[in-house]
Amino acid sequence: MKKVNDTIFDLIIIGTGPAGLTASLYAERYRLKTLALGTFPGGTTNQAHKICNFPTEVEITGMELAEKMTKVALAQGVEIKNDEVVDIKREDGLFSIITDGYIYKTKTVILAKGMHHRKLGLTREKELLGRGVSYCATCDGMFFKDKVVGVVGGGDSALTAALYLADIADKVFLIYRGKELKGEPVWIEKVKSSEKIEILLETNIQDLLGEKQLESVYLDKPYGSSNELAIQGLFVEIGSEPRHAKYLHDLDIKLDENNFINVTPDQKTSAVGVWAAGDITNGSNGFRQIVTACSEGAVAAENVFRYLQKK
Amino acid sequence: MKKVNDTIFDLIIIGTGPAGLTASLYAERYRLKTLALGTFPGGTTNQAHKICNFPTEVEITGMELAEKMTKVALAQGVEIKNDEVVDIKREDGLFSIITDGYIYKTKTVILAKGMHHRKLGLTREKELLGRGVSYCATCDGMFFKDKVVGVVGGGDSALTAALYLADIADKVFLIYRGKELKGEPVWIEKVKSSEKIEILLETNIQDLLGEKQLESVYLDKPYGSSNELAIQGLFVEIGSEPRHAKYLHDLDIKLDENNFINVTPDQKTSAVGVWAAGDITNGSNGFRQIVTACSEGAVAAENVFRYLQKK
Repeated sequence: MKKVNDTIFDLIIIGTGPAGLTASLYAERYRLKTLALGTFPGGTTNQAHKICNFPTEVEITGMELAEKMTKVALAQGVEIKNDEVVDIKREDGLFSIITDGYIYKTKTVILAKGMHHRKLGLTREKELLGRGVSYCATCDGMFFKDKVVGVVGGGDSALTAALYLADIADKVFLIYRGKELKGEPVWIEKVKSSEKIEILLETNIQDLLGEKQLESVYLDKPYGSSNELAIQGLFVEIGSEPRHAKYLHDLDIKLDENNFINVTPDQKTSAVGVWAAGDITNGSNGFRQIVTACSEGAVAAENVFRYLQKK
Repeated sequence: MKKVNDTIFDLIIIGTGPAGLTASLYAERYRLKTLALGTFPGGTTNQAHKICNFPTEVEITGMELAEKMTKVALAQGVEIKNDEVVDIKREDGLFSIITDGYIYKTKTVILAKGMHHRKLGLTREKELLGRGVSYCATCDGMFFKDKVVGVVGGGDSALTAALYLADIADKVFLIYRGKELKGEPVWIEKVKSSEKIEILLETNIQDLLGEKQLESVYLDKPYGSSNELAIQGLFVEIGSEPRHAKYLHDLDIKLDENNFINVTPDQKTSAVGVWAAGDITNGSNGFRQIVTACSEGAVAAENVFRYLQKK
């Protein structure tokens, strides 16, 4: 039997990454009765090895940045609970937010559950994350200056990552399981004409090798005389997936063609009373960065405030 | 005779506030040959008394935050010049950026000159800024908990500021020169029904009084027995103006109905090769905050990168 929390919240934010935390900070400043529910404060930011593109930090670990954001939200008086939301139901003009142990009632919702990069599914992938393995070329590319790196994938994100890395690294192997690269012709053309990029088609990585750091990958076909390809960095660019749940469908929240939540410029979803912010949306022109997530959180909270004021 | 700089830049950013600095930081990470031109690093952020709504800072002065952002941009290798742009011309597929002393050539431009709040034009207005006088209720409202404040203006921004402050302050005087409040009926209704807000119509402030802090304002008609009205805070909400220049018109850059630069979700303006970010635009649903400006700068730089890659 779940415990029903008696408070009727103005706003419940689902997700406590940069988008959710910034939304909660703004909501608190608007004096909205707010609750932020998430499994881990700071979200996937915690996974970033080093961050050098947040506008106020020369260099910071993801964990430190996540900690700073959490501290700011708490200092403003935000109530944060580590609780996983399992369902959302619309009842009597309110939303019931159902977690493992509780039922919370709220007038409005901001969805900010973020996304996860698609993984290769290799044994040592998690262990070597931040030790050669990365899911974000823009974030981590600069750490591979004059080194040899690999990019896995054949679509636009892999192609642009390879081009970006070609300007930094000494050599880039683009490793793709398909017969032909897909994505925009202009990217394919540029990748093919780059002297630094070597394309390995119909090739899969079977294993990640190295002691404390990635040292090489084991391919399913030989490259030169060996199946082992020495690289110091491997960028996995096989797409991303928003963190979904069945309740998105139940609430009739419309998604874009890549399954991200469709938002209007005020971060509104197609369901009245529900906003969304951060990586889970198609906002910020699809450029999913920590600073864009924060911004979307702020915009969402401001619009929740206006919505409740008018009600 | 102006000196012509021989470099052809990939990108010149005009304005070095949060939007311009973040754009420059991202541009540098994309390895674009970038120059940021502005009159003062950090822009109007420097004027903020205290900032408590930036997602990684519990409390910081505008000057400190501006300094942090400038430091990050410089650490990434951004070239920043303190130079006022007087004209922009499109010539031979490039832009000529003309400052007092120099002419710079560039392939693309990001406009990030920000905006300034309309001033009352009173003698001590500048001196008392951050000492009772504020142009941003969201930013500074919390410093007036249980105090008596005034809001100047009769439009939506004044009405919402008054409502916001009514939840924090002990009493709010809404001071407006017009005969009737304008703006959305719902705001007017709410302002009129608030027990904490007192509306003074057809009233102008003639003088700001107080030694080191604002203590009262002198009105052009008596309130009760005196023309002097004791308030500790005065929020000037008579609109904002983007920082414009004649070159916007020459480049055929379209503005919205409030004279902000119309941008698409990728921060593009109506002129090919010209992007805009921050307070000067109608981006982020018109919610002009430091964090939204940073985000717009990042999105603009990413799109300049894609544009140049495809060219």
